[in-house]
Amino acid sequence: MSVGTDAGLLAPTWAGTPAAAEVTDEAWLQAMLDAEVALARAQYAVGLTPAAAVRAIASVARADRLDLVALAHAARAAANPVVALVTAFTEVVAAKDPAAAEYVHRGSTSQDILDSAAMLVARRVLGLVAADLERTGAALATLADAHRHTVLAGRTLAQHAVPTTFGLKAAGWLQLVGDALVRVRAVASSLPAQLGGAAGTLAAYREYALQDRGQGGDPAGGDGGVELLRPFAEALGLAEPVLPWHTVRTPVAEVGAVLQLVTGALGKFALDVQTLSRTEIGEVSEPAATGRGASSAMPQKRNPALATLIVSAARQVPAHALVLAQCLLAEDERPAGAWHAEWQPLREALRLAGGAAHTAVELAEGLVVHPERMLANLGLTGGALVTERLTVVLAPAFGKVRAKKLLTAASAEAAGTGRPLAEVLAQHPELSAVFTSARLSALLDPAQYTGAADALVDRALGRFAELDEKGGSR
Amino acid sequence: MSVGTDAGLLAPTWAGTPAAAEVTDEAWLQAMLDAEVALARAQYAVGLTPAAAVRAIASVARADRLDLVALAHAARAAANPVVALVTAFTEVVAAKDPAAAEYVHRGSTSQDILDSAAMLVARRVLGLVAADLERTGAALATLADAHRHTVLAGRTLAQHAVPTTFGLKAAGWLQLVGDALVRVRAVASSLPAQLGGAAGTLAAYREYALQDRGQGGDPAGGDGGVELLRPFAEALGLAEPVLPWHTVRTPVAEVGAVLQLVTGALGKFALDVQTLSRTEIGEVSEPAATGRGASSAMPQKRNPALATLIVSAARQVPAHALVLAQCLLAEDERPAGAWHAEWQPLREALRLAGGAAHTAVELAEGLVVHPERMLANLGLTGGALVTERLTVVLAPAFGKVRAKKLLTAASAEAAGTGRPLAEVLAQHPELSAVFTSARLSALLDPAQYTGAADALVDRALGRFAELDEKGGSR
Amino acid sequence: MSVGTDAGLLAPTWAGTPAAAEVTDEAWLQAMLDAEVALARAQYAVGLTPAAAVRAIASVARADRLDLVALAHAARAAANPVVALVTAFTEVVAAKDPAAAEYVHRGSTSQDILDSAAMLVARRVLGLVAADLERTGAALATLADAHRHTVLAGRTLAQHAVPTTFGLKAAGWLQLVGDALVRVRAVASSLPAQLGGAAGTLAAYREYALQDRGQGGDPAGGDGGVELLRPFAEALGLAEPVLPWHTVRTPVAEVGAVLQLVTGALGKFALDVQTLSRTEIGEVSEPAATGRGASSAMPQKRNPALATLIVSAARQVPAHALVLAQCLLAEDERPAGAWHAEWQPLREALRLAGGAAHTAVELAEGLVVHPERMLANLGLTGGALVTERLTVVLAPAFGKVRAKKLLTAASAEAAGTGRPLAEVLAQHPELSAVFTSARLSALLDPAQYTGAADALVDRALGRFAELDEKGGSR
Amino acid sequence: MSVGTDAGLLAPTWAGTPAAAEVTDEAWLQAMLDAEVALARAQYAVGLTPAAAVRAIASVARADRLDLVALAHAARAAANPVVALVTAFTEVVAAKDPAAAEYVHRGSTSQDILDSAAMLVARRVLGLVAADLERTGAALATLADAHRHTVLAGRTLAQHAVPTTFGLKAAGWLQLVGDALVRVRAVASSLPAQLGGAAGTLAAYREYALQDRGQGGDPAGGDGGVELLRPFAEALGLAEPVLPWHTVRTPVAEVGAVLQLVTGALGKFALDVQTLSRTEIGEVSEPAATGRGASSAMPQKRNPALATLIVSAARQVPAHALVLAQCLLAEDERPAGAWHAEWQPLREALRLAGGAAHTAVELAEGLVVHPERMLANLGLTGGALVTERLTVVLAPAFGKVRAKKLLTAASAEAAGTGRPLAEVLAQHPELSAVFTSARLSALLDPAQYTGAADALVDRALGRFAELDEKGGSR
Repeated sequence: MSVGTDAGLLAPTWAGTPAAAEVTDEAWLQAMLDAEVALARAQYAVGLTPAAAVRAIASVARADRLDLVALAHAARAAANPVVALVTAFTEVVAAKDPAAAEYVHRGSTSQDILDSAAMLVARRVLGLVAADLERTGAALATLADAHRHTVLAGRTLAQHAVPTTFGLKAAGWLQLVGDALVRVRAVASSLPAQLGGAAGTLAAYREYALQDRGQGGDPAGGDGGVELLRPFAEALGLAEPVLPWHTVRTPVAEVGAVLQLVTGALGKFALDVQTLSRTEIGEVSEPAATGRGASSAMPQKRNPALATLIVSAARQVPAHALVLAQCLLAEDERPAGAWHAEWQPLREALRLAGGAAHTAVELAEGLVVHPERMLANLGLTGGALVTERLTVVLAPAFGKVRAKKLLTAASAEAAGTGRPLAEVLAQHPELSAVFTSARLSALLDPAQYTGAADALVDRALGRFAELDEKGGSR
Repeated sequence: MSVGTDAGLLAPTWAGTPAAAEVTDEAWLQAMLDAEVALARAQYAVGLTPAAAVRAIASVARADRLDLVALAHAARAAANPVVALVTAFTEVVAAKDPAAAEYVHRGSTSQDILDSAAMLVARRVLGLVAADLERTGAALATLADAHRHTVLAGRTLAQHAVPTTFGLKAAGWLQLVGDALVRVRAVASSLPAQLGGAAGTLAAYREYALQDRGQGGDPAGGDGGVELLRPFAEALGLAEPVLPWHTVRTPVAEVGAVLQLVTGALGKFALDVQTLSRTEIGEVSEPAATGRGASSAMPQKRNPALATLIVSAARQVPAHALVLAQCLLAEDERPAGAWHAEWQPLREALRLAGGAAHTAVELAEGLVVHPERMLANLGLTGGALVTERLTVVLAPAFGKVRAKKLLTAASAEAAGTGRPLAEVLAQHPELSAVFTSARLSALLDPAQYTGAADALVDRALGRFAELDEKGGSR
Repeated sequence: MSVGTDAGLLAPTWAGTPAAAEVTDEAWLQAMLDAEVALARAQYAVGLTPAAAVRAIASVARADRLDLVALAHAARAAANPVVALVTAFTEVVAAKDPAAAEYVHRGSTSQDILDSAAMLVARRVLGLVAADLERTGAALATLADAHRHTVLAGRTLAQHAVPTTFGLKAAGWLQLVGDALVRVRAVASSLPAQLGGAAGTLAAYREYALQDRGQGGDPAGGDGGVELLRPFAEALGLAEPVLPWHTVRTPVAEVGAVLQLVTGALGKFALDVQTLSRTEIGEVSEPAATGRGASSAMPQKRNPALATLIVSAARQVPAHALVLAQCLLAEDERPAGAWHAEWQPLREALRLAGGAAHTAVELAEGLVVHPERMLANLGLTGGALVTERLTVVLAPAFGKVRAKKLLTAASAEAAGTGRPLAEVLAQHPELSAVFTSARLSALLDPAQYTGAADALVDRALGRFAELDEKGGSR
Repeated sequence: MSVGTDAGLLAPTWAGTPAAAEVTDEAWLQAMLDAEVALARAQYAVGLTPAAAVRAIASVARADRLDLVALAHAARAAANPVVALVTAFTEVVAAKDPAAAEYVHRGSTSQDILDSAAMLVARRVLGLVAADLERTGAALATLADAHRHTVLAGRTLAQHAVPTTFGLKAAGWLQLVGDALVRVRAVASSLPAQLGGAAGTLAAYREYALQDRGQGGDPAGGDGGVELLRPFAEALGLAEPVLPWHTVRTPVAEVGAVLQLVTGALGKFALDVQTLSRTEIGEVSEPAATGRGASSAMPQKRNPALATLIVSAARQVPAHALVLAQCLLAEDERPAGAWHAEWQPLREALRLAGGAAHTAVELAEGLVVHPERMLANLGLTGGALVTERLTVVLAPAFGKVRAKKLLTAASAEAAGTGRPLAEVLAQHPELSAVFTSARLSALLDPAQYTGAADALVDRALGRFAELDEKGGSR
């Protein structure tokens, strides 16, 4: 009973999603084995490890050949799982080909393997995230375009402000998704392999090379150390690092920062969906599905469950990103804790962002919009939400400051008495003369006061289209 | 491959520890079932649910009767796992006793079950933590007492300051452990059961009671709602809540706050162990064990692995506590995300603190102290670390300010030239007359300048002994 | 231009509030001087410092005698402001009474002064916070009592759930305020003075005492070190510490934890006010005041400004508390950064919480409740929010599971067609027979389904009354 | 006494630094006025505001014309300072030129002004930070180059690992500084102006334009809304936004993320300086300066004060960045708290990073390196830190696994008995035959086992040189 199943019972945002599968203990173990194989391949590529050894190593580098639970428990002794992994994996290889076992983890150090594995895992999840952001963005672009003339109340500080369009609202979500996408792509494509050896000098890699090649033989084009960086990175599909980055933790901190941007962007979208789907507002609904949004108590319930999943992720990821950012403070050539504190936050942030992005696709593609409720809500304040416009119209006659004061008083009177603003204005001693009834009626029409919303939608669509062309996730 | 094993491969702090076993998906699922059973028991206790139904419910309330993975995946639909759990568990009960199935989750809501389960899980882990803090404290008390005359350099801002004793250092760790223990006990004993029904009014519980008892029959001593609070809490061994706390999240925030106190307290201890075990300092060593502190690269390595496990936890837990504190901002009668964001941070903080406390016992009980290295290090600065004392001695003659200036200059001269401070002082035109050689020698002896360290150790031991008497974990 | 005014231009939550005045640079400087005076008094109390020196020191210990800006800039050299402060203050005292200058900061260290000052400042602000929590709680208790029968829609996941009462809602806020108050009082009354000397051994304090009293003279009742703890703490009105706590940072971490509890509690209240005052909901309004909630653009605007001030604080304080919690990891006898990182977060958290509490008094005392809007909103779903009750009623006939299914379908039909739920139910082939029209009408009345709300309000009022009796801030 | 001086008494990292001057209340107020002027200029540029009005507005747009404290206190009413600012500034303009007053804040909203001001302030500080990173980087590059052959112990988990060079260590710091610099430049150059009007539609701007130009007159090339974006941004020297970003908060979150990268990068450097300057290690010293690193108690103290200032900043900034990241969750068209919570964290993060960068220049340019101490420390373990190399050498004869085991045992024997490793190896039954004495002596020489350190230094220097060419801060 001491080892559990990592099913995500407490994390419905990612339970069962593709991202979750990429960050399990098993997946991470496999990624570490992938790093060991890549090291053997790189050493082969520069003429150091025999092809047969590489084949033997690669053929048994499967997570299911190892006892995951035993490795995890053994990791307490060294404070990281690689020491025990190397021992166990060496035995597996030796069973297959004793000679090959000499080439396992040759010249390497725990951090080279674990960091490279982390980058592999991160790249896989960021790839999923990028693809889901693209789909989400595409759906939001469609919404923005379709609803560029759908008027609804702009809301600021929880109050009706001036009108806006649902298209512009969706354009704002799209803009955020685009911002996140740009950064996800940039970070995903720059994730470096890690290779440094015990203290980042590549010394043991080099020592083996010198020994294999003979001390006198100056190897053409390589020294057994730096020369490994490129083939190792290529074998993993990662970027070549300038330096070993055992304590140059920008790559990890950047993954954290970009993941919080992803969940922040999607979280804003989801938060708006929650607000707009409030019973009293009812301007959007989540896509219906059997059981979706059900309650264990209340038969009528249709909760914004997708949005809730996304918001719950957005509330957690920044805390993980913070831990990763703080781990930049890594003393010496390998810190006694700051490195070790990265692993769980990185994993959790990856799957929360992955799950949120997966969920956002469904939310964006299926979002149901209720323009009639938007229209009805626009009428709630009897025109008060366009008093700003009236200020503009009255400014020439009264001055901007006095115009605003008059309208503040009129709005308060309308709100206080429950009389329509139009009526209050029409009977106002000073203001009544300014407007004809028809003019006032036009001025109070929210649909005629959406400013540049339409043009702004175009700008947002244009920007996302550019990103879309550049991207390669799809 | 989409579901993994929760083995703690990336979390050696808690992998395989007792705390980890208490917070697995399986354990949490069991705690939810425990809450369902407790509800049936409470309703039986007030005369509402038949004994046979309670027996049937209790007899099948075992996590292994349910498909954990299916439940976790199904949780996405409702954004929490309880909706699907109730359906599945009702079917299990129905298979056993169809009549009993009517009494499953009767009048209840997801949050009553999940929050009560969370408190159960938290109490179990806090119990482990308290016991481990007691053992750690006892070991530190022993160290403090044994080393009350072991002198070492006090260090401030990474530099030798004035002498202190290892006993007082251990007393400081003990004080922190005591502070954490007081709060752990207080929080653990106050964790409330959750019972409120759909929106915290207990309405459905009451409605069932009214129906069972007949509308007219005013039940003696209870209304089917409030009357359930006490028996439900008692059935779970939790505290009776004043109110349903669906959005009164003090209990959860407090668990977070106390866990960060635990890892902060232990983290300070561990950080000091790391510093004192630096190669150049060498004043303490971690307890030796086969494979402990090994490196995958370097044969000679004996890393402070236990301390590293603790520090890595201490770097993570505050971030989880932060999320829990922020979830106090829970809108309405159940928030759309703030509740859902609590679960994973709570789980992770519990097992990190539990693992850290488990590890701290081993570290404190086995810590190896090297008084000879402490003595050697005290000599490194040639007496400079007692210049504060000389200021005091010189103050009557020179005034405090001028005395300090003279000694600053003399210290700088000693440091700059490499001459012993005693020699510099003995040859100083103004100072040489003040001290006899014997007096100077005594004044420069670090062992004679440990202030009230001894008395302070007694104070710390006395305070912890008081706590120990009050506690009941052992 | 390089030094600004700390007016709170970007922090309207605390700008101009009493708490802000207690944490200015000037206030902090004064508190450090207060600590220096308290040290002189304590040394006088044990017979070490002459009364005349104490009088001289106390007479000039005023922040305005020192050049604050120069001190702040000089603090960069030592990484703390006390070193320069001692020099400057010694000169001020010397100008008054040269002999007294010898008794300034005698035996002391920067951290004793700064930490004691921090506790003084914290205690002052926590006192303000406690008083404001008491007033807020009293106002919320009045609201809870007055509105125990005011029915409104309970809301979960942003959707109408089942009915509740505004009294119970206010009782939840009250409960949170009470939770915070309990902890504020506990922490405020336990804040310890700091006294340890250079490395926490009290050595220099003791050395001066030995020198003053003569080495042979065994001082009655004291050793010049530990004996100072009590009179020093008493002179400051702080608690006597068990040990110097230079690196036993529980007191500071606890202040952070309690402040986040304060703003979390008030933030939940404020968040609910924002939601309930949404244009579409309109169930409460903030107290009106000239200019309150105004917009620079929109004449009609009456934003929930008080709630916004509180929420903005609640979003910031946990981050400060996190930094304080992390500073528990303080290496050695004084850390090189972890101590220094506490000061600004502590200050900001104090004034944010102080400002939030100050604001909450006004919000709670002036909150305007609109029962008629609550009633209107209850009707929005045509009775769907009491379908839970119908499940209970139907359970005997259909079984709980099937009853819920039938009602889910009926609710969906009502929502989909816009027909009232009562009508759907009345015409339902299976359900119509169960209810008479009158019975159905009664069952669908939200006011008759508020469960134990009334009794729960009494529990909350009773608990707060108990706290109120214990408290002494008023 | 209720308003203080913002001198930085508790923040020596930034007290008196150029960055601090850029973020005072006064500076922020000025930046808001700069935004108001830029708005008038942009409206003039598109033919809407008369030149005379722009001149009048610009001529009085000076912070010292306004009552800062009164504005700050008044900000509580609207929960932001702009509402009161507009009123006060309009009066100032009216006193100069009543006609011009009509053009103040014309069509605008609080957030346009405050956000644009925030970006102005951020850009100014980021400019300072970039310049200081360039200087720091240049100094580190010099150190890396100069010390490419200075050997010291690589340290992992606080223990000697294998040798490295001080040049490579400095190259790692340089790499981090370069990473930060790249991001600072990218973010600084993309900071957008904010212009959206009340709810982000630009409606009032457009309405004024339509009114000025006549409703019928379709303005060539502009609509009074979108057409303002570019000239407004240009007037401020900021980037043109795609959309108003009132609730598209990427720019603010990105500033937070980049600032934590800056302090994280510098914090790693500072943390290493602290470690290396420990009394027992003594491999580097901070640059000496009068009073630098002084203690209020201990004459001999020379604390690593600069590093401490940097580390204290690095411990705080991630918490501010977290708040900014969380404020991405901004509901509606302007959130009721999430916007307001950004201001103080943004300010504090800016000045902490600015102060840290300013401090880092001094630390990097003045760092004193002690190669002789590095050499002495390398000898402390009697050669144990090159046992990794011996594994390589022994691998052909014993196999890698057995070679490591033999060396682990030999190292343990040497450590346990205090005998030099060379002696243990020379007398080892199995190993003695492998090495000649001369060969063993060479193998145990740390200076001959620095791997590819030299080549890696070149890579780091090359990368920074590329950045340096691209940059334009100097």
